[in-house]
Amino acid sequence: MLMPMTTVACYQATAADQPLSKGTLDRRELRDDDILIEIEYAGICHSDIHTVRDEWGGARFPLTPGHEIVGRIVELGSGVTGFSVGERVGVGCMVDSCGDCEHCAVGDEHYCTTGSTPTYNGIDRRDGSVTQGGYSTHLPVNARFAVRIPESLDPAATAPLLCAGITTYSPLRRWGAGPGTRVAVVGMGGLGHVAVKLAVALGAEVSVFSHSLAKEADGKRFGASGYYATSEEAFYRPHKNSFHLIINTVSAPQDVNDYIKMLRPEGILVLLGAPGVNYDVSPGLLMRGKTMAGSMIGGMRETQEMIDFCAEHGITAEIELIDAEQINDAYERVIASDVRYRFVIDAKTF
Amino acid sequence: MLMPMTTVACYQATAADQPLSKGTLDRRELRDDDILIEIEYAGICHSDIHTVRDEWGGARFPLTPGHEIVGRIVELGSGVTGFSVGERVGVGCMVDSCGDCEHCAVGDEHYCTTGSTPTYNGIDRRDGSVTQGGYSTHLPVNARFAVRIPESLDPAATAPLLCAGITTYSPLRRWGAGPGTRVAVVGMGGLGHVAVKLAVALGAEVSVFSHSLAKEADGKRFGASGYYATSEEAFYRPHKNSFHLIINTVSAPQDVNDYIKMLRPEGILVLLGAPGVNYDVSPGLLMRGKTMAGSMIGGMRETQEMIDFCAEHGITAEIELIDAEQINDAYERVIASDVRYRFVIDAKTF
Repeated sequence: MLMPMTTVACYQATAADQPLSKGTLDRRELRDDDILIEIEYAGICHSDIHTVRDEWGGARFPLTPGHEIVGRIVELGSGVTGFSVGERVGVGCMVDSCGDCEHCAVGDEHYCTTGSTPTYNGIDRRDGSVTQGGYSTHLPVNARFAVRIPESLDPAATAPLLCAGITTYSPLRRWGAGPGTRVAVVGMGGLGHVAVKLAVALGAEVSVFSHSLAKEADGKRFGASGYYATSEEAFYRPHKNSFHLIINTVSAPQDVNDYIKMLRPEGILVLLGAPGVNYDVSPGLLMRGKTMAGSMIGGMRETQEMIDFCAEHGITAEIELIDAEQINDAYERVIASDVRYRFVIDAKTF
Repeated sequence: MLMPMTTVACYQATAADQPLSKGTLDRRELRDDDILIEIEYAGICHSDIHTVRDEWGGARFPLTPGHEIVGRIVELGSGVTGFSVGERVGVGCMVDSCGDCEHCAVGDEHYCTTGSTPTYNGIDRRDGSVTQGGYSTHLPVNARFAVRIPESLDPAATAPLLCAGITTYSPLRRWGAGPGTRVAVVGMGGLGHVAVKLAVALGAEVSVFSHSLAKEADGKRFGASGYYATSEEAFYRPHKNSFHLIINTVSAPQDVNDYIKMLRPEGILVLLGAPGVNYDVSPGLLMRGKTMAGSMIGGMRETQEMIDFCAEHGITAEIELIDAEQINDAYERVIASDVRYRFVIDAKTF
């Protein structure tokens, strides 16, 4: 039995200069390869704010954001195997891809040559509609883009892993964080605090570089052995040639050369932020095999691997659980970096 | 029997604004761990010119450059094992290191935490003298810093491999050039032409990006399947998302974003040049896991591996063999990029 097109409750932006408000949106009929998720929790990512305020351009209103989604399957499309009604699943930043290209073929759907379909504000490749995200009660989604969430994980605190978790897990794995490696995490926000937990669980020796020492106790509690303030003059100096890997989660403009100096020979600086200005990189600092890499989320295979790793190690995000009516206040606090460490919305309140 | 300190013929710079001239220099008594090399050939690297003209600062005159050295062993220090008199050996960019640090311990002497000792214009760590390079008839050198040159390799054409060869081989290996990978080499000079040969021998599909198409026939002869002119407007456009690995040998200031655009997801741009200005890097282009890496020579273990690889595949540099009295003219031609592809000096003419 396929669900007919259904109107569901949501929170949405109707224009770039308007706060989010309670509304409804139409969800498609369940396709053969879809599962229908009754959403339990949706995380708030800074990208949601950039998008609904049209700071990146291209916003399509009315727009329901949210790409850190956890819920339970309430219905299966007729062609779906491997999932059961009642199972808890998660959906992250993408909901479709071509499925045929060389990248999709190896589970790197985020590199799909035709572009993967974003969870919200994207164009559905079959019906041309605008995709709508997780700030709502129900989501039909292609089963290939859902991951299983073990019951042992707290579902609210797991929601942010679908974006912040995979975004940090993927470069930590690609670049070999593990026993015998020294990893620095720059920025102790939504991404950074998860990066610390993941790197510690992977066996690395972890240091945090945050603007101030305000969150030092948390950093140590998450397993970091060192915690340093980047607001200090020449903060990098005692750490020159120290780190195998630096995961830099800061989006504000910054001098990346300070971090390159902290790399060991052949060390890797991963830049996850998207500052509005270019990086100014000293060629001499890159000698000795030092490397600067970008990264973005991960494929579905790796997203499931990340969730399973988190379940094995008992890792979830630190969250503040809010009701939907608090979304606009929460946005202001995200912008002010006043959240420890991620807001998650209780979907029962949409 | 140790050689007493000996005066040998050389070519040297006496000041930054003077041409190189014939002269003599004192070579140290052979140490227990030294071998004495009678030099056969010395390559001319652009670094030689920068150094003797004091363009990088710190030149110590009189100064004999040369770090692409091939010759035969004529004497062994009493503690040297594994080498024999008469064997052909090579010396590259470094002649000593601490030998104890974590990098030296794994054969990465170029990353020595105390700094490796350059072949010329460095300070000998035992007697404090200034090291003097390969533009001379004889060189005593710590046996750890000599590599075996198989007799099958033409010795004159092998000399440039000690710098240009290892500088390109090391990143090609580190970043996985081989069957199934698409490699671009930017710049068809001393480094670039060797990079093409090495990448082809490693099994990669190789394209060359040179300022013009003037050397296209050579590029194809070296095994490149594509050859493109970077002087063309938007030359990168047909090659977006094409390459697993780009080895950029250009030292002139350039827009590295053009090359980042040509990388596939998770592709690597290796920058070997040392332009005098910083790179201006667009953060958005680094997404999709794209990576920008520096590199410099390689350790002694890898240098021997490179020579053995070249012997196995019959790879040497393309050279113009000159007499010592042509050095100053050759320098002008190097600066004008008017050499195919490396000058090598016949040491009998010093």
